[in-house]
Amino acid sequence: MGSAICIPAINNARKVTLLGSPLDDHIVDAINNGLPHPNLNVQLPNDLTVLKNDQHTTDLLQSASVIIIGVSSAGIDWATQTIRAAQAQPELLSLVTKGLIRHATPSQSPLTYAHTLPEAIQIDASKLVGIGGPCIARELALGYPTRVVFGAHETTAAKQLKDLFQTDTYRIQTTDQLVELEACAALKNFLCIGVSSALGAHPLNNSFAKNPVAGFFNQAVIELRILSEWIAQAGKQTPLPTSALQTPTAFDLAGMGDLHVTVGGGRNSRLGNYLGQGESLSDVLENQMLNVTVEGVDTGRQIHTAVQHACASGELPAAMLPLTLAILDCIHTGGKFKFEFASLPG
Amino acid sequence: MGSAICIPAINNARKVTLLGSPLDDHIVDAINNGLPHPNLNVQLPNDLTVLKNDQHTTDLLQSASVIIIGVSSAGIDWATQTIRAAQAQPELLSLVTKGLIRHATPSQSPLTYAHTLPEAIQIDASKLVGIGGPCIARELALGYPTRVVFGAHETTAAKQLKDLFQTDTYRIQTTDQLVELEACAALKNFLCIGVSSALGAHPLNNSFAKNPVAGFFNQAVIELRILSEWIAQAGKQTPLPTSALQTPTAFDLAGMGDLHVTVGGGRNSRLGNYLGQGESLSDVLENQMLNVTVEGVDTGRQIHTAVQHACASGELPAAMLPLTLAILDCIHTGGKFKFEFASLPG
Repeated sequence: MGSAICIPAINNARKVTLLGSPLDDHIVDAINNGLPHPNLNVQLPNDLTVLKNDQHTTDLLQSASVIIIGVSSAGIDWATQTIRAAQAQPELLSLVTKGLIRHATPSQSPLTYAHTLPEAIQIDASKLVGIGGPCIARELALGYPTRVVFGAHETTAAKQLKDLFQTDTYRIQTTDQLVELEACAALKNFLCIGVSSALGAHPLNNSFAKNPVAGFFNQAVIELRILSEWIAQAGKQTPLPTSALQTPTAFDLAGMGDLHVTVGGGRNSRLGNYLGQGESLSDVLENQMLNVTVEGVDTGRQIHTAVQHACASGELPAAMLPLTLAILDCIHTGGKFKFEFASLPG
Repeated sequence: MGSAICIPAINNARKVTLLGSPLDDHIVDAINNGLPHPNLNVQLPNDLTVLKNDQHTTDLLQSASVIIIGVSSAGIDWATQTIRAAQAQPELLSLVTKGLIRHATPSQSPLTYAHTLPEAIQIDASKLVGIGGPCIARELALGYPTRVVFGAHETTAAKQLKDLFQTDTYRIQTTDQLVELEACAALKNFLCIGVSSALGAHPLNNSFAKNPVAGFFNQAVIELRILSEWIAQAGKQTPLPTSALQTPTAFDLAGMGDLHVTVGGGRNSRLGNYLGQGESLSDVLENQMLNVTVEGVDTGRQIHTAVQHACASGELPAAMLPLTLAILDCIHTGGKFKFEFASLPG
């Protein structure tokens, strides 16, 4: 991920240097010999400078306006010590490293790197920007559309980093909930283990049954909320109010859970897949899906006028409904699905 | 789905009659000839009575304590007219049919079947129970673990129906947000079209890139929330307060979105898959995943003591964290992943 995240900055014509850890010499050699990145299997752009860790480390770190830590959690101590030893004071310090650390107290409250890095590096906590969101490194390096969230204690810092990185395909939201963001990023790996057990436990044909995994996924999101809010209020020692844990319907089984199982199987998903390939809705419904009932299309027809009305009157926030409005337009015109990834919040 | 939902009731030793619509004669014939259900490709249990629509309809509907409408949205008028003509007054009326109807007003506000069925059937609205949640009919009929949500205007009715249907593998939550539930069930098909466009738009190897679909999925859940809350407060004509639309971190990109992309790809998912196949954690980490860093395991080790502490003190709600506690136990002991699907909220 440390290598992949250089790509959007390079695409924005930033001057980027990728500095390998002591374990990365073979990666640096491969890239500088014109080979694909060994882990990503992607050719990195020529205008990326790639150095081994013993080349100019101190000068480089001292002159950098932004430093992003991209090691795995096992390398975090090496990274922080190197930056501290260089007495670097970048304008912004960011990290894609994810993990939690036990606090050395009897209760061993979990801490995020947002808690520990400022002291470890001797840098102001306001300069720290966390990065979360669904982002597979290889897909980012290949330029696939990706949405992420940058977080800082004050949104200003997150927005400064966003200005350097956002492109049409790398879309960045910002938040001032840095600790919740870091907690989610670490805990989602943890909870994924439980959710994915459903893949192995419930084989079906050459794949797996979707009902169990959607049920687990939904539960994992509910628990992710509870745990991340608990970590964010660590030290306050007040129980989470149960009323605050009431889950909005759309974020629970009837909404998120059902959507998870609907995407990837069934007729609505099949139609969406064709639209994504560039076909027009009327072509699909008159050919590949002739006489197939696509309930999402019927629903779109039912709500079209009402949604337009409500957006015009301000009863619905049009700016927050780009996906809805694009699907409605496609159904209404029968044409292609005109949706720019860049129109998603970011 | 009308056929599949008979299975959990049959498994609870309820007396169930499946009544075909005028379009279902071939299905009734197939089942009564001992063949698999033609649409589900599943053999239904022998103790299910299956009738054609011209057999005893009136008597049957009048004597039923519970009637569940299982037609597609195209058949809803036939179903309501048949029940009304029989002057049936069941204790509970439920439906798995999903859809929205334009209200005959200038703004054409969307109505759910929760709005329209009581008058159409001449039955008290308090008897109506909606069914939502991630449930593929064939998987339910095959007995795969499935989580759903039953909703009514008063939770009591939803709980009455739950008592008849809940089994160890068909897990039912209840809600008093009937209209939001019905709105989600219809709109998720609609939004799925947009999300699934990412499958067609972004092929990768023999599958599709996961970053784009996770980004769309996340957006769809946010919009699902807005639209379903808007439909639920229809008639009140007050704009949704923007502050109420703030999304908790765990329900947005850093949580739900990232979890979506993490499940199904990567090392945490691979480990979970092995655990789901019945392997023990230590066996997997010493064999198939020797020397592989599984960050979710590290995270679990970091939080184990703190979560136990916080659950014991009441700072964390243990009963709401079954998945977390089961993964923690598995990591702590190195043993098998001991998790009963039936322990999920339901």
